Amino acid sequence: MRNTTLCYIRRGGDTLLLHRVKKENDENRDKWVGIGGKFEEGESPEDCLLREVREETGLTLEAWRYRGIVNFVSDEWGTEYMHLFTSDAFHGEVKDCDEGVLEWLPWERLPQLPIWEGDKIFLRLIDEDAPFFSLKLRYVGDRLVEAVLNGKQLEVRSEE
Amino acid sequence: MRNTTLCYIRRGGDTLLLHRVKKENDENRDKWVGIGGKFEEGESPEDCLLREVREETGLTLEAWRYRGIVNFVSDEWGTEYMHLFTSDAFHGEVKDCDEGVLEWLPWERLPQLPIWEGDKIFLRLIDEDAPFFSLKLRYVGDRLVEAVLNGKQLEVRSEE
Repeated sequence: MRNTTLCYIRRGGDTLLLHRVKKENDENRDKWVGIGGKFEEGESPEDCLLREVREETGLTLEAWRYRGIVNFVSDEWGTEYMHLFTSDAFHGEVKDCDEGVLEWLPWERLPQLPIWEGDKIFLRLIDEDAPFFSLKLRYVGDRLVEAVLNGKQLEVRSEE
Repeated sequence: MRNTTLCYIRRGGDTLLLHRVKKENDENRDKWVGIGGKFEEGESPEDCLLREVREETGLTLEAWRYRGIVNFVSDEWGTEYMHLFTSDAFHGEVKDCDEGVLEWLPWERLPQLPIWEGDKIFLRLIDEDAPFFSLKLRYVGDRLVEAVLNGKQLEVRSEE
């Protein structure tokens, strides 16, 4: 069981994404993801958010919005509670990242990139400016088999 | 590091509280608390909420509000992330609880009961109908030494 943060940092219409191509044995390998990582001992969600953004990008967030919690359950990886943030207020210069290649891409392109199927659900919730949400996503391998939003089952379109 | 839920179940002006007098070695011993407990493997916050309320009280929640996350850091106990809910829609009959004595008490009385110092902060946030919040509370023994709300330091009145 682990707690993590994920942040979409936005500048105008663009979003800072990490293309995870540098680490072996990475459950996100080759996927495009926002900025974030695991909570360290004693960290609040904001502590982790600010540290991870600083470590991975060199940027310092000045303000942020806490969008929701995404609970990933999988037959391959341990259960994860991902605390989801967005930010459009920061200072500093983007530096190189050990974990992949950082790139500013138009927000609208995210759903077309290689991302996890369930990511499209929370990207849409961010787009719709939904109030704080709790989203459970259950995977079998790479396949999304269940999605529950605020305790209510969503329809999941199986691609088989 | 553990994730837990806490729920204040309300009926009119009363709130269902648990007086923790039954378990030895209970960090909450003799304190009055809401209903809740630890996440089990794969549970979402709502999964844990519904199960704990059912197990501890016999009640089934029909609706709830997700109020915030409280991150407890202590020199004595491991770090905890408590997912805080309220509910005023449920069915069933209150049954006996293994972990203490259940009692309906007026909501206004809570701050006067033996509760943790920091609890008063989130009770006030619930009263004020604050939007979803993230509250970090740091204790040394029983003494609250730091409180951070949505990343901003609050003034903590030391009683020494």
